Amino acid sequence: MQSSLMLRDIVIGMSDGLTVPFALAAGLSGVVDNSDIIVIAGIAEIAAGSIAMGLGGYLAGKTEQDHYKSELKREFEEVERVPEREKQEVREFFEQIGLSKEIQEKATEEIAMDKKQWVNFMMKYELGLDEPDAGRATKSALNIGLSYIVGGIIPLLPYFFISSSTEALKLSLVATLICLFVFGYFKSKVTGVHPFWGAVKVTSIGALAAGAAFAVASLF
Amino acid sequence: MQSSLMLRDIVIGMSDGLTVPFALAAGLSGVVDNSDIIVIAGIAEIAAGSIAMGLGGYLAGKTEQDHYKSELKREFEEVERVPEREKQEVREFFEQIGLSKEIQEKATEEIAMDKKQWVNFMMKYELGLDEPDAGRATKSALNIGLSYIVGGIIPLLPYFFISSSTEALKLSLVATLICLFVFGYFKSKVTGVHPFWGAVKVTSIGALAAGAAFAVASLF
Repeated sequence: MQSSLMLRDIVIGMSDGLTVPFALAAGLSGVVDNSDIIVIAGIAEIAAGSIAMGLGGYLAGKTEQDHYKSELKREFEEVERVPEREKQEVREFFEQIGLSKEIQEKATEEIAMDKKQWVNFMMKYELGLDEPDAGRATKSALNIGLSYIVGGIIPLLPYFFISSSTEALKLSLVATLICLFVFGYFKSKVTGVHPFWGAVKVTSIGALAAGAAFAVASLF
Repeated sequence: MQSSLMLRDIVIGMSDGLTVPFALAAGLSGVVDNSDIIVIAGIAEIAAGSIAMGLGGYLAGKTEQDHYKSELKREFEEVERVPEREKQEVREFFEQIGLSKEIQEKATEEIAMDKKQWVNFMMKYELGLDEPDAGRATKSALNIGLSYIVGGIIPLLPYFFISSSTEALKLSLVATLICLFVFGYFKSKVTGVHPFWGAVKVTSIGALAAGAAFAVASLF
């Protein structure tokens, strides 16, 4: 579970990291001869993107935790204050999954015998909320941010060493499309999609984004 | 429900759209005098980012649909082939929420009377899967992509009209931070966070990303 969440973070960060800085560099290569300016733009984009994604992930995680806590507090209060209405909600859950009136009644009474169990039930099945892991938000931010940086460095590397941007672009294209394919292959394996076709799709998005950036930048 | 999903898409697209192109333009303003190059880089980034996020959202939606369909098929087969094992899983669900042995047994028998109801129950409460809306993936891609474009145009606008990038940066900073604050305020209202502090957080992420991009670009 822990490692699958980490894998998900890496996938989120790396798929955008491999795609956006790559496409930006490709787009600029169409209009700027000098690799230096592309390296600077690429690095600025990686800094901005990794912070936006990493901190965005952190905030989303924190918001989820706060939301869970405030709902938990509210449910505990409601179970005290309006137990009949809360029981009715439990009954409705059992009705909606297809149980008979008799079993609805008995099951509801059993759930309501223990307040903690009752509240947990309401949180999970009335509100559809799972308890978020307290340390997740920070870890998630770091995983997503670092994966974005790692992914973003790959397409930029050729521009560090080759001063002609059109020459660097060729190497960047080959290296990044290979990385996108390999990355898409493993990502698909993890998410249970057909690995080859999943890899083709991920690679296509990267190529399309780069093509669009190139076309749009050349137009202006 | 529909409109809250659409709102979520707009939030996803616009928060990155307002942040990343803004930060990229700010970063480049520290090293490039000419606004033209910043406009081109910004537009290339918006093209790349909106495609990566929009198509990324589309693929994620499609994967979710395929996953749901294949799991649904598998559950229908298992209910035919190994009904006792599937009943045991239903029983375990009722045990885990805290029902007595007797009610577990009776409730399980009632669920298993209707195969469609049984499978729906397994999908939702054993696997935690909700049926995805078929048209969502396409709509979601468009909403996210367009919101990214709208968000990204705002910080770039000053660079269209002011040729000195440092002058344009000042206007871009003011306009974007105001937009981030207003956007963060409404986003927080929707997600149930305290609006003012939520707005401060969203604005801070944007400012931090822009500051980091500026610092990193100036270093190189």
